[in-house]
Amino acid sequence: METTTLQAQSSVISIPAFLAHWQGHRALTRRTILAFPEDKLFTYSVGGMRPFSELALEMIQMAGGGIKGIVSGKWENYEAQSEKYQASTRAELLALWDAVTEDLNRFWPQVTSERLQEMDKAFGAWEGPVYWITFYTVDNEIHHRAQGYVYLRSLGIEPPHFWER
Amino acid sequence: METTTLQAQSSVISIPAFLAHWQGHRALTRRTILAFPEDKLFTYSVGGMRPFSELALEMIQMAGGGIKGIVSGKWENYEAQSEKYQASTRAELLALWDAVTEDLNRFWPQVTSERLQEMDKAFGAWEGPVYWITFYTVDNEIHHRAQGYVYLRSLGIEPPHFWER
Repeated sequence: METTTLQAQSSVISIPAFLAHWQGHRALTRRTILAFPEDKLFTYSVGGMRPFSELALEMIQMAGGGIKGIVSGKWENYEAQSEKYQASTRAELLALWDAVTEDLNRFWPQVTSERLQEMDKAFGAWEGPVYWITFYTVDNEIHHRAQGYVYLRSLGIEPPHFWER
Repeated sequence: METTTLQAQSSVISIPAFLAHWQGHRALTRRTILAFPEDKLFTYSVGGMRPFSELALEMIQMAGGGIKGIVSGKWENYEAQSEKYQASTRAELLALWDAVTEDLNRFWPQVTSERLQEMDKAFGAWEGPVYWITFYTVDNEIHHRAQGYVYLRSLGIEPPHFWER
């Protein structure tokens, strides 16, 4: 109870505000997917890296596969997510994206401050407090989306504005 | 008071934990600065973008110039930060970086949950709740550091591991 009070007294962001923050980032990433010519989305990269479709699939797997574990503590392994979320066209990729958007809206409001402080193992493999697992998921999306920005620039395409969410 | 209670009941991350999260990202970015050959740090980019030294200076200006405004509500304009933080060698860049690390450690613990919910205008220009200004600063660093990762990969250099903070 003392921990909860301390935590409560020093909150940076509320649970509803964090969802808006997360979905704002996801809306920007969705526009980044749309900014690529479809063939380049699945084939183009810089420096031997993965094409943006694969980076976007990783974001989908982490968020879509992760949200239930974040909320409930019940995790499937990560390999199961790679099998579950597959796309070979932009339309398929966007359909997965939008399904994860709904999953986050449905499940995230069930999380509690107490749950976010618990230690857990994401996908049975990566250990840390649940807030850390959550931040890692969002930060990994920001990280890989930014790499897509470089791909777009090197194709002569202007990426969406970073500050528009 | 009701707002504070609601906020308190739904905290995602505490003020001390957020500093550790932020400084973890900054430690990773510092290693990214070190991964570049010094000449490439100041000259190399992909797709007509800014070299990594300029992206790192922007991070320094936003965090170093921003932390006092975040805590106190007193902002200098952004142009003043561009003048204040300048570097033409890696050693100068790292000295600025490390000074900002100390500034964050000194000032961030003075922020309160109530302050983080207030509306403010970062550098007198960008309006939002203070937690939003704070997240924007960290997210912008993740975004630009990831672009440095692509520069490194295209130079044949392996970037530091994203998951090590």
